Amino acid sequence: MNNFSLNTPTKILFGKGQIANLGKEIPAGARILITYGGGSIKKNGVLEQVRKALEGRPVFEFGGIEPNPTYETLMKAVEVVKAEQIDFLLAVGGGSVADGTKFIGVAATYTAGDPWDILLTRGAKVTSGVPLAAVLTLPATGSESNNGAVISRAATGDKLAFFSPFSYPTFAVLDPVTTYTLPPRQIANGVVDAFVHTVEQYLTYPVEGRVQDRFSEGLLLTLIEEGPRALAEPENYDVRANVMWSATLALNGLIGAGVPQDWATHMIGHELTAMHGLDHAQTLAIVLPSVLEYKREQKRAKLLQYAERVWNLRDGSEDERIAAAIQATRDFFEKMGNPTRLSAYGIDGSTIPALVEKLKEHGCTALGEHQDITLADSQRILEAAR
Amino acid sequence: MNNFSLNTPTKILFGKGQIANLGKEIPAGARILITYGGGSIKKNGVLEQVRKALEGRPVFEFGGIEPNPTYETLMKAVEVVKAEQIDFLLAVGGGSVADGTKFIGVAATYTAGDPWDILLTRGAKVTSGVPLAAVLTLPATGSESNNGAVISRAATGDKLAFFSPFSYPTFAVLDPVTTYTLPPRQIANGVVDAFVHTVEQYLTYPVEGRVQDRFSEGLLLTLIEEGPRALAEPENYDVRANVMWSATLALNGLIGAGVPQDWATHMIGHELTAMHGLDHAQTLAIVLPSVLEYKREQKRAKLLQYAERVWNLRDGSEDERIAAAIQATRDFFEKMGNPTRLSAYGIDGSTIPALVEKLKEHGCTALGEHQDITLADSQRILEAAR
Repeated sequence: MNNFSLNTPTKILFGKGQIANLGKEIPAGARILITYGGGSIKKNGVLEQVRKALEGRPVFEFGGIEPNPTYETLMKAVEVVKAEQIDFLLAVGGGSVADGTKFIGVAATYTAGDPWDILLTRGAKVTSGVPLAAVLTLPATGSESNNGAVISRAATGDKLAFFSPFSYPTFAVLDPVTTYTLPPRQIANGVVDAFVHTVEQYLTYPVEGRVQDRFSEGLLLTLIEEGPRALAEPENYDVRANVMWSATLALNGLIGAGVPQDWATHMIGHELTAMHGLDHAQTLAIVLPSVLEYKREQKRAKLLQYAERVWNLRDGSEDERIAAAIQATRDFFEKMGNPTRLSAYGIDGSTIPALVEKLKEHGCTALGEHQDITLADSQRILEAAR
Repeated sequence: MNNFSLNTPTKILFGKGQIANLGKEIPAGARILITYGGGSIKKNGVLEQVRKALEGRPVFEFGGIEPNPTYETLMKAVEVVKAEQIDFLLAVGGGSVADGTKFIGVAATYTAGDPWDILLTRGAKVTSGVPLAAVLTLPATGSESNNGAVISRAATGDKLAFFSPFSYPTFAVLDPVTTYTLPPRQIANGVVDAFVHTVEQYLTYPVEGRVQDRFSEGLLLTLIEEGPRALAEPENYDVRANVMWSATLALNGLIGAGVPQDWATHMIGHELTAMHGLDHAQTLAIVLPSVLEYKREQKRAKLLQYAERVWNLRDGSEDERIAAAIQATRDFFEKMGNPTRLSAYGIDGSTIPALVEKLKEHGCTALGEHQDITLADSQRILEAAR
């Protein structure tokens, strides 16, 4: 097992009716900014529940944070934070709202220049941030209890990540009932996203991290069992609860502590979203099977373990079991409604050189758990995914 | 799934050499009290590593915290905390030292009377405490990252628990190398303790907590695989690492969040330790199989799941599989060197009425996940364990 440092400070309030309890988690006297997205939380009553939980307190609101939240929009929220002297941010929505709110939090106290520099490849260090919390309505990214965020810049087509110790939500409210009204596409995306997050921390090479492996396999099995049911039975509380809890645990640091991590699929996928506007999870469903096929030799031991423990594939040669496990992964994504080929979205491959150019621009020249996926490899991975 | 609130604020520093990094986790200027037990940390070099990590800082030491730490000893440490104006406690050792240090922390700032009243059945509320952290040298209790502690009172033979929001260690250092020199009995006890902690949160009744079930099964499988190896190969780093990480995760709140919990085995076991001086884990190995047999009807569904997923028992009738799973549990404890009968310790059953009287005195009149294990049931469970 590798050495690790694991920090999971976000307090989780999970279950039916938990929004009503969030008031006591926010410091008394705080001037609170509720941040949200396109307004679905107005229709499904979640915003009303949050307002009620904060009744009588100084509350402001900022809506309109888009999927793949943009610097341009978020900087408007930063102006509100400064103008209204906000000292607590409450993100209400999915991963995009949580991610965007993390950026608002650190950008609002950043004084060393343009907050865009906070994004990873620009390298500016974050030294403070406005405290934040999340009310999650879309299980997917795990952003509600980790310290990372992915931000896009509309003007340039960039999509970049940052991590900061000031960006852990202090608490997160997860009420599965809030997910009942989500469109099927968003539930499907969430299940695929959580699945791929888990795979990125699991399907690498063995380091005798037995607990981490068993936990990852537990999340994958749960998502395989409950994902299709979440589509078929949208108001089955336990199914939605299992999906929601899986998605949070897939990216709170726990399963990735002490083991190698891949993340090539995410890095390549980000470019597809930035250039072609595909949903994040749509890109993952396309790229992951291609990465697994391309790196099957280096991932052999873990692919065999994955085949046996997750897909119960015990017959045939090693190569047959590996092929069957990758096919099962593909079938699972397709069953969730997420195609696994670029062609399904009318992308014919002519943009692959431009996508690779963007990877280069973003420093993604050595991806994967061995940092050996070069730009040429990424090109082949994309070509095999046509 | 049941509603839950989950708080895991303890930062984990895991791995070889991590003791060297603890200095920066303790606030600058803090007056630090290192607490420890019988002195094994002097022999194995751990105390020296800790001292080195804190070189040049105001450090005091308090040794002699015994297994099943006593109120009498801990109150002496409280005097040191007050006299030396200590503002950070660093527990170096196993669960007893961590538990004892938690009591020192809250007792030192308790002003409403005798700190013994903090123990659960005496009901006094804790409103503050001296911050603490732990350097773990004996994987077993999970105390290094939860907010509970069990304290004994030598004068009366009582053994009682408390939980406080001020008793979470701020960080915990887990270096598997520090466990190499542990006597086999302590490693065996630790594995059994972690196993039973997991079972207490798993073998109840189904509530569709699929992730919790899979995680619990993952810990049990890891302990079954690695427990005997930890005895056979004391300096196998990965084996010790897997045992250590399993023990922490078995009782940090995670696997028990949102599911019913039993704890009858622990409550009955505490009385055996208090009256007969058995090690904590020795009592668990005796009581658990008896509880499972006695409650097999109420636990039927989970016992069948346990039989299949943990022990791979798929053949025979339901009753046969349940019997085989309980027998496998018994065999595992015996293989670890922990007998599963009172008679192995020369306890003939004549003290059972007195043990039940102690349970009554400590309010343990309705144990288990259904709170339906009466004193008469506990008596039968003990009699069946002779």
